[in-house]
Amino acid sequence: MRAVTSPADAAQYTAALAARYHEVRALSLALAEPLSAEDQCVQSMPDASPTKWHLAHTTWFFETLALRASLPGYRPFSEAFAYLFNSYYESLGARQARPERGLLTRPPLSEVLQYRAQVDEAMDALLATSIPVELAATIELGIQHEQQHQELILTDVKHLFSRNVLLPAHSAASQRPRTAPVALAWIEFEGGRCEVGHAGAGFAFDNECPRHAVLLPPFCLANRPTTCGEYLAFIADDGYRRPEFWLSDAWATVQAQGWRAPLYWREIDAEWHIFTLHGERLLDADEPVCHLSFYEAAAFANWAGARLPTEFEWEAAIGSAACDGHFIEAGRLHPEAAHPGTGLLQRFGDVWAWTRSSYDPYPGFRPFSGRASEYNGKFMVGQLVLRGGSCATPAGHVRASYRNFFPPAARWQFSGLRLAREC
Amino acid sequence: MRAVTSPADAAQYTAALAARYHEVRALSLALAEPLSAEDQCVQSMPDASPTKWHLAHTTWFFETLALRASLPGYRPFSEAFAYLFNSYYESLGARQARPERGLLTRPPLSEVLQYRAQVDEAMDALLATSIPVELAATIELGIQHEQQHQELILTDVKHLFSRNVLLPAHSAASQRPRTAPVALAWIEFEGGRCEVGHAGAGFAFDNECPRHAVLLPPFCLANRPTTCGEYLAFIADDGYRRPEFWLSDAWATVQAQGWRAPLYWREIDAEWHIFTLHGERLLDADEPVCHLSFYEAAAFANWAGARLPTEFEWEAAIGSAACDGHFIEAGRLHPEAAHPGTGLLQRFGDVWAWTRSSYDPYPGFRPFSGRASEYNGKFMVGQLVLRGGSCATPAGHVRASYRNFFPPAARWQFSGLRLAREC
Amino acid sequence: MRAVTSPADAAQYTAALAARYHEVRALSLALAEPLSAEDQCVQSMPDASPTKWHLAHTTWFFETLALRASLPGYRPFSEAFAYLFNSYYESLGARQARPERGLLTRPPLSEVLQYRAQVDEAMDALLATSIPVELAATIELGIQHEQQHQELILTDVKHLFSRNVLLPAHSAASQRPRTAPVALAWIEFEGGRCEVGHAGAGFAFDNECPRHAVLLPPFCLANRPTTCGEYLAFIADDGYRRPEFWLSDAWATVQAQGWRAPLYWREIDAEWHIFTLHGERLLDADEPVCHLSFYEAAAFANWAGARLPTEFEWEAAIGSAACDGHFIEAGRLHPEAAHPGTGLLQRFGDVWAWTRSSYDPYPGFRPFSGRASEYNGKFMVGQLVLRGGSCATPAGHVRASYRNFFPPAARWQFSGLRLAREC
Amino acid sequence: MRAVTSPADAAQYTAALAARYHEVRALSLALAEPLSAEDQCVQSMPDASPTKWHLAHTTWFFETLALRASLPGYRPFSEAFAYLFNSYYESLGARQARPERGLLTRPPLSEVLQYRAQVDEAMDALLATSIPVELAATIELGIQHEQQHQELILTDVKHLFSRNVLLPAHSAASQRPRTAPVALAWIEFEGGRCEVGHAGAGFAFDNECPRHAVLLPPFCLANRPTTCGEYLAFIADDGYRRPEFWLSDAWATVQAQGWRAPLYWREIDAEWHIFTLHGERLLDADEPVCHLSFYEAAAFANWAGARLPTEFEWEAAIGSAACDGHFIEAGRLHPEAAHPGTGLLQRFGDVWAWTRSSYDPYPGFRPFSGRASEYNGKFMVGQLVLRGGSCATPAGHVRASYRNFFPPAARWQFSGLRLAREC
Repeated sequence: MRAVTSPADAAQYTAALAARYHEVRALSLALAEPLSAEDQCVQSMPDASPTKWHLAHTTWFFETLALRASLPGYRPFSEAFAYLFNSYYESLGARQARPERGLLTRPPLSEVLQYRAQVDEAMDALLATSIPVELAATIELGIQHEQQHQELILTDVKHLFSRNVLLPAHSAASQRPRTAPVALAWIEFEGGRCEVGHAGAGFAFDNECPRHAVLLPPFCLANRPTTCGEYLAFIADDGYRRPEFWLSDAWATVQAQGWRAPLYWREIDAEWHIFTLHGERLLDADEPVCHLSFYEAAAFANWAGARLPTEFEWEAAIGSAACDGHFIEAGRLHPEAAHPGTGLLQRFGDVWAWTRSSYDPYPGFRPFSGRASEYNGKFMVGQLVLRGGSCATPAGHVRASYRNFFPPAARWQFSGLRLAREC
Repeated sequence: MRAVTSPADAAQYTAALAARYHEVRALSLALAEPLSAEDQCVQSMPDASPTKWHLAHTTWFFETLALRASLPGYRPFSEAFAYLFNSYYESLGARQARPERGLLTRPPLSEVLQYRAQVDEAMDALLATSIPVELAATIELGIQHEQQHQELILTDVKHLFSRNVLLPAHSAASQRPRTAPVALAWIEFEGGRCEVGHAGAGFAFDNECPRHAVLLPPFCLANRPTTCGEYLAFIADDGYRRPEFWLSDAWATVQAQGWRAPLYWREIDAEWHIFTLHGERLLDADEPVCHLSFYEAAAFANWAGARLPTEFEWEAAIGSAACDGHFIEAGRLHPEAAHPGTGLLQRFGDVWAWTRSSYDPYPGFRPFSGRASEYNGKFMVGQLVLRGGSCATPAGHVRASYRNFFPPAARWQFSGLRLAREC
Repeated sequence: MRAVTSPADAAQYTAALAARYHEVRALSLALAEPLSAEDQCVQSMPDASPTKWHLAHTTWFFETLALRASLPGYRPFSEAFAYLFNSYYESLGARQARPERGLLTRPPLSEVLQYRAQVDEAMDALLATSIPVELAATIELGIQHEQQHQELILTDVKHLFSRNVLLPAHSAASQRPRTAPVALAWIEFEGGRCEVGHAGAGFAFDNECPRHAVLLPPFCLANRPTTCGEYLAFIADDGYRRPEFWLSDAWATVQAQGWRAPLYWREIDAEWHIFTLHGERLLDADEPVCHLSFYEAAAFANWAGARLPTEFEWEAAIGSAACDGHFIEAGRLHPEAAHPGTGLLQRFGDVWAWTRSSYDPYPGFRPFSGRASEYNGKFMVGQLVLRGGSCATPAGHVRASYRNFFPPAARWQFSGLRLAREC
Repeated sequence: MRAVTSPADAAQYTAALAARYHEVRALSLALAEPLSAEDQCVQSMPDASPTKWHLAHTTWFFETLALRASLPGYRPFSEAFAYLFNSYYESLGARQARPERGLLTRPPLSEVLQYRAQVDEAMDALLATSIPVELAATIELGIQHEQQHQELILTDVKHLFSRNVLLPAHSAASQRPRTAPVALAWIEFEGGRCEVGHAGAGFAFDNECPRHAVLLPPFCLANRPTTCGEYLAFIADDGYRRPEFWLSDAWATVQAQGWRAPLYWREIDAEWHIFTLHGERLLDADEPVCHLSFYEAAAFANWAGARLPTEFEWEAAIGSAACDGHFIEAGRLHPEAAHPGTGLLQRFGDVWAWTRSSYDPYPGFRPFSGRASEYNGKFMVGQLVLRGGSCATPAGHVRASYRNFFPPAARWQFSGLRLAREC
């Protein structure tokens, strides 16, 4: 948290926090707006949650961690919601089993929207007072938390729609700009002693801390993410049928799941189509490949004679570059082809980059204190780190030190890759 | 089918068919009316289907078997619906996988209601013409089919609601009449050569035919279904913990599922509660026990020193009694205690009676001809016969020869038992 | 049991029982003799048991039901064996889980053989005394029980060997006699009131009782079991790819298991081979098809425009014919082509005939009393009846009223079919 | 590989290699010697393999990688063995499915022993010639490979025996020395820039390379592994029932598996017993706890207010200490209490130490070239690193840079932990 040094400063900070609160809360509703109550209720797989559940859970987070503790006289909207909308906080009591979030036809969406309204009103009351820094930190965490769920609202409803032969669209596509394809090029980095992780005044998750130094050999990164066209060459070269490119668990998964292409790709009459949040359309060879598992990203890199970068190579290469890119606010909701340019293109946004780093704790890692202690630390096994955000990430949410993480077989996120190699 | 012998007779018959068509179609909507679009969309287990799917599937049945074939110029509402709302007819093409019916947030409920309206209108047009007897038989089958799904609408939504800690009610309970409990008594039947199965003019399913004779030893039936109070004594005597009462597969299921009481029973502070379509309430010891599997029904009978009747004993005992009882139209949607009386009480309605008969074909069984050939015959393995209908069966739908069937572990139907024994 | 009316008669009876005991016990060892200790130790699937386990379990049966109860001073070989070699008798205590019988590398085979020797010696002592009829009945049951396990020894080791690419043989094949193929012909039976089930002096299982009358319409049976050649025509006509022939559960199984032919069939370079207890060889079109599931037998019958007989049709057709046929003692261990003849050929032996009858209790069924009460009754759900015995059944073990039973998907028994149809 | 610089040097090297070859091969047979053919044939879970399979597979490794390629005129023992005894080498062809290694009652153990003898003889012939360094490296790899399987022979048969209520012993226990317990103490390490990984002349696996520098903060390690007594305190403090100590996947596993203590622990009448390769006995509070999963090791460390070391902390702390300790040759086959002393005790042997490091590739990692390329690299996901060897590791096999790895839920290895913490 930023240091707050005077009452005027504090008031200004709180006002800014309130403004951000409302902006983020409004975006959640805007993302849900094109969806019917039915669309928002159903769960298409255990990993995905219904939109309605996301809307309620993010609200529960503010109610439970901020309002119940800190707003005198606050009366919870419903005691049952503590059970229904707790995600995974063992210390906060029993909860709806994750694979059964889609059974909740009640409360109806309308009631969840009332819940949001009541909590927003109470948060206004809270934010009109002088709040201690710990509480401000909790509210900031709640905002960041809701931004994470915004991305999940989109990836989860995309999965749901993909399982319906009607192939519904979340929203209409806007015109995609056409530019000349950007050729693959390698950028060299000298490595050496590099500082990684978060330090300083802004918000960061506990898993980005503490900032520390690592030693890196020299390395090269591709100037842009891998494209669908490049991935098609891997498929055409029987990439999915040749075990030599795959990790052992990966190959077992390819066999068991019958994978033959990224998630949401479909070959119709010898032409590849792709399902997007705007419906199904022809594949664009120039756009970044996404909806890959770590297994596929690593196999592709092997096939290409390269490898995935470590999370520290990625972070060192990004350095202090501005966090601009193609994010959720652009409304495109699908990665786009790189625009011509020099240096590392598409550093942030478009597609998350799988790294070759397991999601392990940093030296001296300490979980958030208090009720949010389960936020990140307990997931530090069996997952791989992704970096950089995607077209479904809210602008301002990611940063160079941001560590996203998913199991190696997960494909329903906007996950792609950027190649690395020794120089 | 009834023989139709003159044009006037035919017109009268068709008019009656049209009236029944509308009555049945209206009841489906009435059953769904208390449910939100969300409630009607979700599937709580592979065996159960969403209400919306039931409403669409029964409509698809008329469209596919009557309108497409027989109404000149009929244009199907949507080609995709042939895939989405086919249940299990292999001969009618590929279809939505059964466990994935709950993924269909699209079409929305409103569109399914339009679908029903279009098909109803077209059926009116069809029924305004002179129709051949084969078509009349198909329409009659469609009506009977929709009645079967009416019961499933209720049992399926009951299961859905039971999985929600809010324990929603489908509708408000009406006052239940209180009468003196009816003591268990045994009625003797002499057996001998008995005719079973359907013959005559009225509608019957193919699985009830042909009518044929069986030989039965003398037997006794209980005067009424087993009550919750009687079943409580079985539980209290450690019925669920003593393997000697259970079939081998049954005992394995009890262990694997952790069964300790019928479905929808819950012990709260040493008092048994029961979840109904009107919400949860205290158990009534006098009402018929239901939501039993065959396994439990058979184990209870063993414990009681009795047995389940065969389906032929049940049918012979019923004889030609009128098919009156407590059905769906009464709006109670839960079995009720027997009213004092003599002879076999609650012959029809209240709870389906599990029998000790496997669902095998009758001698000389022939499936329906044509597109409905898959209706019953292909399920004749691994299931047990139930008889008599329940509080969720439409009046007029069951008869003495009616054979319902479910796998031995199924519990979400209104399934109970009536004891039998040697005399 | 046969009535025993004098001391001399009793002594003679006991002597005969002792002789049969030794004959049967010796056959078990003879069947195991070609197998190594390793072969006898391994379990290839949960349904199958190791030979060593069969040898010990059948011994445990005599020890537990006869010696412990009735031989004064008998000291059990090992208390642990009561746990290790109990099969499914809940009333006789906890036991080794069925799928884990193959974990028992200890006791070694040599110790199991000592166990057999000790029990045989003690049984000799017991049979040298004057024994009550109940005990004689128990010993007779133990003999019949061991005969059932003799068939399982062969079917279980056949399954084990089939899973090894070395395709080992249990024993060498003898020359198979070549005869002219027997054309399919239909034999008519008039049906009517028929007595079925066991009555009289000889041994029978409880599930064959009581003898009772059934009514049968006229029917026809094929003169011999279906042959491999006939079954090949079903395969060639895409029988495994056309759902219209299959029961619903059957079709789901075909899809899930990828069935394309009977168990143990393999196509090599467009020629069908079959794995037998003598190793793999070319298929013989004239021999009876076996290792079919009920699902396949019923689908074949549908395809052939016929059906499976009910168990009562089969029994009525057999009538009082002598139980002769091709049994285990012939040493062929595989069904053989019918020899030319008239009437019903291959009534007994060669292949078990799947019937269209679920394995339900007979009217008035009572389980064996005492410790053997779990023998048959608790399996009376979810299974289908087979009749007639096979090439792996001991001679003298089957009879017209004998009811074998297996779940509808089981294929590792010598199970085939004989067609039936309306006349 | 060590540099070989003259013919005399080469001859000496080859002679030494031959001697080591025979020594290692003999140890495998010695470990199997107490086991019957039955014991050596059975597979108790998919992760474990039969002893016979280990004996054959290690032989196949030499035959396939050395003899077939390099010994002129060598005739493979059996072409089928290439299928039966290939473990996971996709590039070397199809193979017996891993969970089905226990189905191989054929070839019999006697034939596998002949196989070993033939290969040993041919290896003698090969090693009597002048061999190129690549071949020497392959043979060295085969030796190291067989040493890895020696540990697995013991852990796999231990698992098998633990599943048998007879609780057989692999061998008799020798007297265990009793010493005063060693109190837990913390040793400080300053961290900083540390070299890790292998360099130099001796053998190392590809996954230990290249040697590279890492930056470590100061840290403390416990002077000895965690003991059973310390672990008992965790159990007594409800460690297995309090989610706050556990990673999320770990907690799910504890719930699903019902874990309440380490593998092979059993409470009998309020006293803890432990199953060892010498049978079951009372737990010794002073001996190192083992048969822990990573999940349990990490939960214990959390409970203790400490953490697991990273693999680099462990390696830096060991430095260049001699690789002495309590290994397989001691014949104790169970970890023993630390002997009093100063500094880091039990650096090597006794129990593998779980680390907090995922098994990721080192910077610049290159798999072995040629046929052994699949040896390690393809397993670098979803596993955690263990360090230091155990009482079941052959002496001379481990070293400071040695990286063992298993999935986080694996418990059947001799896996324990040594605590770490910030200083």
